[in-house]
Amino acid sequence: MDDAAVGAFLELLRFPSISTDPAHRAEVGACAEWVAARFRAMGLEVELCRTPGHPLVLARNAHRPDRRTVLIYGHYDVQPADPLELWEHPPFEPRIRDGIVTARGATDNKGQFFAHMLGVEATLRAKGDLPVNLIFLVEGEEEVGSQSLGPFLEANRERLACDVIAISDTGMVARGHPTFSYGLRGLTALEVCVKGPATDLHSGIYGGAVANPATVLARLLASLHDGGNRVAVEGFYDGVRPVEAWEREAWAGLPAGDEELLRVTGAPQLDGEVGHTTLERIWARPTAEINGMGSGYQGPGGKTVLPAQAFAKLTFRLVPDQDAANIQDRVIAHLRDRCPPSVRLEIERGHSGAPYLVDPRAGFGAAACRALRRTFGGKEPALVREGGSVPIVADFKRILGAESLLLGLALPDCRIHAPNENFPLENLEYGMRLNMALLEEIAA
Amino acid sequence: MDDAAVGAFLELLRFPSISTDPAHRAEVGACAEWVAARFRAMGLEVELCRTPGHPLVLARNAHRPDRRTVLIYGHYDVQPADPLELWEHPPFEPRIRDGIVTARGATDNKGQFFAHMLGVEATLRAKGDLPVNLIFLVEGEEEVGSQSLGPFLEANRERLACDVIAISDTGMVARGHPTFSYGLRGLTALEVCVKGPATDLHSGIYGGAVANPATVLARLLASLHDGGNRVAVEGFYDGVRPVEAWEREAWAGLPAGDEELLRVTGAPQLDGEVGHTTLERIWARPTAEINGMGSGYQGPGGKTVLPAQAFAKLTFRLVPDQDAANIQDRVIAHLRDRCPPSVRLEIERGHSGAPYLVDPRAGFGAAACRALRRTFGGKEPALVREGGSVPIVADFKRILGAESLLLGLALPDCRIHAPNENFPLENLEYGMRLNMALLEEIAA
Repeated sequence: MDDAAVGAFLELLRFPSISTDPAHRAEVGACAEWVAARFRAMGLEVELCRTPGHPLVLARNAHRPDRRTVLIYGHYDVQPADPLELWEHPPFEPRIRDGIVTARGATDNKGQFFAHMLGVEATLRAKGDLPVNLIFLVEGEEEVGSQSLGPFLEANRERLACDVIAISDTGMVARGHPTFSYGLRGLTALEVCVKGPATDLHSGIYGGAVANPATVLARLLASLHDGGNRVAVEGFYDGVRPVEAWEREAWAGLPAGDEELLRVTGAPQLDGEVGHTTLERIWARPTAEINGMGSGYQGPGGKTVLPAQAFAKLTFRLVPDQDAANIQDRVIAHLRDRCPPSVRLEIERGHSGAPYLVDPRAGFGAAACRALRRTFGGKEPALVREGGSVPIVADFKRILGAESLLLGLALPDCRIHAPNENFPLENLEYGMRLNMALLEEIAA
Repeated sequence: MDDAAVGAFLELLRFPSISTDPAHRAEVGACAEWVAARFRAMGLEVELCRTPGHPLVLARNAHRPDRRTVLIYGHYDVQPADPLELWEHPPFEPRIRDGIVTARGATDNKGQFFAHMLGVEATLRAKGDLPVNLIFLVEGEEEVGSQSLGPFLEANRERLACDVIAISDTGMVARGHPTFSYGLRGLTALEVCVKGPATDLHSGIYGGAVANPATVLARLLASLHDGGNRVAVEGFYDGVRPVEAWEREAWAGLPAGDEELLRVTGAPQLDGEVGHTTLERIWARPTAEINGMGSGYQGPGGKTVLPAQAFAKLTFRLVPDQDAANIQDRVIAHLRDRCPPSVRLEIERGHSGAPYLVDPRAGFGAAACRALRRTFGGKEPALVREGGSVPIVADFKRILGAESLLLGLALPDCRIHAPNENFPLENLEYGMRLNMALLEEIAA
């Protein structure tokens, strides 16, 4: 990887393009401008598309009817960086040590989409043209649910028409091990707030006679699972597709094991739904997670209050063929049924993304596997699903009618969404070469 | 109430003796000097005792071995007066309207202890002596936790030795309704932290295979109560003294009701331990309250993390004869028993205060009731307990071995700790006469 490419990558990482935080709006926009300028410098036709949220960058070469059209997707926005005190250095001042770049967004998704940009750039420089019609779409709202992308796809169906979509925003099973993610979990979010007294009360003067919203919330949250860590919401598993035999076989041979997961997460012990292996739990089983909760006094020492309210942010990971709206309805009914009349329960519906599954043994799936083999010296790609969600994959399928190829470059210990997120320069190089091979295989 | 007494009361209220604010240190000291001077003018032996914080005023008559010794406690320090804009006049420029004095500290505690000073003064003036050995102790740090009082009691055990203590720093159930607070709840605190992975994890990549500390905490907190809002910790109620028949009868006739509690708290509905009335729940039943809790992402929008940890601040209100250390042990055992090995549970023991109960039908309790009856024209005193804790009462019991008689003069709408704090001159008069009657009854 040449110094100029690495330097440009570090420039990209310096933008605190945190899409969820209104305070960073200008910097999100500046990041989009930077991406657009780099596409322009490659000689591509570039458009910075305004949306109600953050802008989309759209780049394309001259399209010809005699070749296939590939849409490459990425996102330049990043997660918030807190807790800041756990970072070894400021999250938007990237550092390189032993060939590994540390910064918020290094893996998710700046490193991965930038590798594709480098591949396109290299092909154009070497051959003056690409083997395919290219549409390169980089959005700025992936971390807040890609709210503008769906409407944008709807409004631009024709000029975004493509044969297949390539996305690097998923994981590799191990360093140097090519990985094709043929399935994703979906997601649906809810925010729950339990409201009791008008203000925080003195817990001595009123405690015992007024319901404590934190206690009520704890009970509601505890009711979401049974003793076997199964989600206890009625009908939650109704649509869940069972794991197939060839999948079990493919997964059994994968290098990533429980010990590695313990090492990476630092959890004292793995734990999950009874009757399933770890990979099944992450890839093929739905979950109910508390992402955050808060109530009352959280400062140093104590304060003897009975809190006025308590809230929790929940997400449910979904698998084929669960339906997000149906799951929201069922969870809301579950919580309302169990909430006592001594508090008010407010539930806000959040964003959703459908789960996704593509056949890795035929069509563009097989082309992706060939490109991976070429890039990684003939090594057989791992066939995996991902526990995470890429909601836009479902949108692409629904609106553009095209399948997505998920050719991820995220390593198991890349710490995305967490302090000290990192990306090895080696993967920037793999990604660049993968892009070149993939466009050729799709063209063939 | 004669003009000179009222004038002296207004003088006392003009000192901005805000103990928490270093800017008012000199005025706190000046207030102590004023109190000391007034005791001196009565012919008492007075000592202004320096402490690491604000001075204590100690006054006494000549003690004789053939009579009982009574310690009267009060505090001359007050809460800060902000928000100032909500006061109808400057908080340290007292006003009298319709016989009600408005000023910061009017009820808490200047009006109440000054009434006792007026009583002592009147008795001395009329009879030349008191029927008891008197120790009058007025401290200046009650609003900041009485930090110097405990060490002062320890260091002066012998010369503070007494038969009984009288304190007017609690409430009356209604205007003109004499009230004896014969019980207080105690308290013990714990902070619980559930630790899972080393950092916040991506809830898609790891969710399902790693225990979520927020979920584990919610289950632990939910396990603290059963379906009837009883505390479900084994042995929690072992030491609880049941409400006696005479108490039920006494409380049933009190003017404060559920509707008033709903109005004051703004709660949608009252709720608490099954099988008990509201007053029983607050006064005579122990509780387990979450004062605060936090985990994961609490900012705007969403963040799909599986939190590294989750914590809760708990306090348990205790009643006779629960033992704080025993309750801590039982709760810790309860939580440890229920915590899965996939997380680490850390529990920090917090401070404790013992519950308090004195029999209003015998001994000094009965003497207090007789004094109240005499003062309020024969009206039967309301016998109440308080849900809160008064830590100094436990200190007096523990260090001096004496019971406290809580004979409060604060009206329900006196606005202590709030703008427009007020105290009726009528209660200054009641308090003065109560003091005279109380010393006689105790002497008898």
